[in-house]
Amino acid sequence: MSTTKLIPRTSSAQEPPLLIKTLLAQSLKYEPGREIVYRDLFRMNYHTFNSRVRQLANLLGKLGVGAGDTVAVLDWDSHRYLECFFAVPGIGAILHTINIRLSPAQILYTMNHAEDKIVLVHEDFLPIIDALKGQLNTVQTYVVISDKAYTDPSAITVPDGFAGEYESLLAQESDAYEFPDLDENSWATTFYTTGTTGNPKGVYFSQRQLFMHTMGLMACVSAYEFVSFKSAKDVYMPITPMFHVHAWGFPFLATMFSAKQVYPGRYEPEMLLKLLLKEGVTFSHCVPTIMTMLVNSPAARQFQAQLSRWRVIIGGSALTKGLAKAAADLGIELYQGYGMSETAPIMSLTYLNEQERQLLPDEQVEFRTRAGRIAPFVEIRLMDDDGNFVPHDGQSLGEVVARGPWMTQGYYKEPERSEELWRGGWLHTGDVASITPDHWLMIADRTKDVIKTGGEWISSLEIEDLLSQQEGVGEAAVVGLPDEKWGERPYALIVAKAGMSPSTDAIREALQAKAERGELNKWYVPDRIVVVSEIPKTSVGKIDKKRIRSEMKDLLIGG
Amino acid sequence: MSTTKLIPRTSSAQEPPLLIKTLLAQSLKYEPGREIVYRDLFRMNYHTFNSRVRQLANLLGKLGVGAGDTVAVLDWDSHRYLECFFAVPGIGAILHTINIRLSPAQILYTMNHAEDKIVLVHEDFLPIIDALKGQLNTVQTYVVISDKAYTDPSAITVPDGFAGEYESLLAQESDAYEFPDLDENSWATTFYTTGTTGNPKGVYFSQRQLFMHTMGLMACVSAYEFVSFKSAKDVYMPITPMFHVHAWGFPFLATMFSAKQVYPGRYEPEMLLKLLLKEGVTFSHCVPTIMTMLVNSPAARQFQAQLSRWRVIIGGSALTKGLAKAAADLGIELYQGYGMSETAPIMSLTYLNEQERQLLPDEQVEFRTRAGRIAPFVEIRLMDDDGNFVPHDGQSLGEVVARGPWMTQGYYKEPERSEELWRGGWLHTGDVASITPDHWLMIADRTKDVIKTGGEWISSLEIEDLLSQQEGVGEAAVVGLPDEKWGERPYALIVAKAGMSPSTDAIREALQAKAERGELNKWYVPDRIVVVSEIPKTSVGKIDKKRIRSEMKDLLIGG
Repeated sequence: MSTTKLIPRTSSAQEPPLLIKTLLAQSLKYEPGREIVYRDLFRMNYHTFNSRVRQLANLLGKLGVGAGDTVAVLDWDSHRYLECFFAVPGIGAILHTINIRLSPAQILYTMNHAEDKIVLVHEDFLPIIDALKGQLNTVQTYVVISDKAYTDPSAITVPDGFAGEYESLLAQESDAYEFPDLDENSWATTFYTTGTTGNPKGVYFSQRQLFMHTMGLMACVSAYEFVSFKSAKDVYMPITPMFHVHAWGFPFLATMFSAKQVYPGRYEPEMLLKLLLKEGVTFSHCVPTIMTMLVNSPAARQFQAQLSRWRVIIGGSALTKGLAKAAADLGIELYQGYGMSETAPIMSLTYLNEQERQLLPDEQVEFRTRAGRIAPFVEIRLMDDDGNFVPHDGQSLGEVVARGPWMTQGYYKEPERSEELWRGGWLHTGDVASITPDHWLMIADRTKDVIKTGGEWISSLEIEDLLSQQEGVGEAAVVGLPDEKWGERPYALIVAKAGMSPSTDAIREALQAKAERGELNKWYVPDRIVVVSEIPKTSVGKIDKKRIRSEMKDLLIGG
Repeated sequence: MSTTKLIPRTSSAQEPPLLIKTLLAQSLKYEPGREIVYRDLFRMNYHTFNSRVRQLANLLGKLGVGAGDTVAVLDWDSHRYLECFFAVPGIGAILHTINIRLSPAQILYTMNHAEDKIVLVHEDFLPIIDALKGQLNTVQTYVVISDKAYTDPSAITVPDGFAGEYESLLAQESDAYEFPDLDENSWATTFYTTGTTGNPKGVYFSQRQLFMHTMGLMACVSAYEFVSFKSAKDVYMPITPMFHVHAWGFPFLATMFSAKQVYPGRYEPEMLLKLLLKEGVTFSHCVPTIMTMLVNSPAARQFQAQLSRWRVIIGGSALTKGLAKAAADLGIELYQGYGMSETAPIMSLTYLNEQERQLLPDEQVEFRTRAGRIAPFVEIRLMDDDGNFVPHDGQSLGEVVARGPWMTQGYYKEPERSEELWRGGWLHTGDVASITPDHWLMIADRTKDVIKTGGEWISSLEIEDLLSQQEGVGEAAVVGLPDEKWGERPYALIVAKAGMSPSTDAIREALQAKAERGELNKWYVPDRIVVVSEIPKTSVGKIDKKRIRSEMKDLLIGG
């Protein structure tokens, strides 16, 4: 920091902190009559929503939640979850959004680790809570959530030891509540991210960080129109769970906009499609799997007219060209976002510049399948193993490192992993990428899978892509193995297409010829290609490169 | 502040401060090819602009400007001024935007008071500087600015004791410069506001405040579209001086957007119209006087097709219905902003909600002549004399008091006036208004002119408006005079229309009848109406209510 003069402040002067309550307050100013919809069960305008958030604030107080306490939620995507997004940080407490897809043992670990005090739990997840109850060390009380509240309240059973049911508890509370002015660095949310090894890691965000993330999203969708989301015209429905990085932060933005919002509860294809059509949804985000399901459903073609108004951000894993094309055929505009739990999440998003927007939809696919352009207010650099920055020339690879106003400042109670994440003052993503001079980010690999040969980093994914295009090749996996002269060299496994017998020599020759024509860096040609009957996979279906590296080493020593 | 948990930060973690350099950095990310235009003299894209800002940073360093020093500018609206908006705070220095319309004595006072170290001065203002030079206690050097740099550089004369001419000095500097990370509360800008009494008062803004003001404007024009300003389609030209509250902050926003910007230099009607048409300007802001000039010019009708794409925010003084209608007839969309130097400036801006947008242009005039709806992130309340809040019922009057992330935190070196401004923790505007339940702000009066009668505040302006509509009345002025029973009561002066002799009794009866029909609060009927030949005015042509009050008192005692 240079020495500058700070502005003087007279003792009575006020400068409001950047808080989540300020986002909420905007929802009443301009179009409070718009609606928040939950499945086909419940709808309200923003006046009612604000009243309910204040009622929830009072309820939390009555249940013993104070500033600094943690409130856990297990629910599908709902208006209740949205109420928690505002009420829990509003009173200065911390919202723990539980990943209901974790194993019960992992859920137990995260709840004890986060020191949850109150748990709001949808009845679908009562079996999990029942099983864990004896081992939850910090929880003092529970509230049950039930959709029957909107159809048949008398059918609700409140389990023993629970404070009650959400709707009936809320109804007893006053809607008068003044949200306090808090320090903007107050802890607002926590959730857990799992890696391949070790316990889940808790990331966390302050009120200021979530406020600024909302400003970043606003700049993306309103100012620069990476993808257009207009408060006046658009209808928002998340199809990325709210427990997963706050549904990418869009619920905060949509609420600040007082846009019409639709919460689909549990993701059921029929309900999603019904809401999409009936409520006129125009803006969503989801993982590729859900979009694939949707474009392949016979109903999609039938409702093409409505779907062609739909803009969807894809994230979570890479958008393939095939999916991008299939969606474009239906008139659905797909955009790709890149981010992680640690980055709240937005780091980049598809932005087609004025020239690229002139391209035909098919020509745009090339751009739409990139990881996006670097998001507003985010700084991204590429770093080599020695901590040096790598040029943004669209070719050179380096680890993606980031800074920005909304990055987790560590992993909760994990000092070593926190410092590892932030070594050198940059958040390390573990992803390897190149960046074009015009700020397109192109993810090449995971750090641990990139192959370092002769001082260059080469992408195992790119070689796999090349191999897959060779005749007779069904699938390919490429790993780097130690090499005395070059550090590492690429080795490939391929699986033959049914009924074919690809020649590894022919494949190597084809790649070599490409390299000689200057179409391929010569380092990319694998030293050895082996045909196998099956490529080892992890339990979630990803290529198990760790196992391949170890088995290949044996094979090389053996051979 | 409640006690909350703040987020923990691992020692290597970074969270960037909110700085003006971050706004600038966005201008290179998405559409750096767009242009910044200066009159018919100079144009450049954002790559060049960024290079020039970095060259200016180097130049300032060479001239001895360090963090915390003050750099003064006297220039018309130009790309050079825009470069100073970014380079001066960028190096941690303070930009003093000098109001060239102040008297030389006032300019002298402000320059000594602000402790200006370096002065950049357009050659048009050299006579002022020449006259003051001997009395400027803190200035170390000067740089002359000349438009001849773009036409005939050899004709430029650099006065004695000046460091040189802007363009030629810039050309000598490297464009490599890394803007430092500063405390976000660093002092970025200063300028002076004049009242009816006392010395000009210096208001000042931090980097964070200007960053947040930009977020507020972005929410207005991009997200909620109070008035639409799209980075992709719009062309921005300020017609409110850059020395006046940073041209309402729009140059920061337009630069962050990398929108096409047009700087008109000195405001000359022909040049303004030429730029408007040739550069395709679609978005501006100005005071009513300039708009009146424009709509009355014969050229306006001729160029109606182009003008009908123009959206203009009016501020500075109230937009009249007549002007709003005249502009609407030409297809120009007028919006009204309300703010002050102290508030950076935006506090409210015309926002027509979904219903109001359905109205015909003529019907919208009623709304467009209000002071606007309360701006995003700004809190406005109405306060009575005892510091109590007054309800937002569209009727009750109170002083407008404000809080928000971009309010000056005092007047520089004026501790008493600073505390007076911020008494009770709210910034006091000195304006009296009502607020509707749906957040329309309607300015009624200045605090010192509002009439306090029987515990109610009534607007002198509203009674004047009523009186002006009575037969034979040319002009009216209303003031409050002391009254034993009611505290104050309204008294009116009227001037007869040429050749008419209005009856004061008839006028009183007409108002009384209105009151009896419930169309007017009975308190509003003046106790006495006097016909005069002329209404006393101040030197700037405003009704001199101070003088009227004093003369009316004599008149009452006399009569």
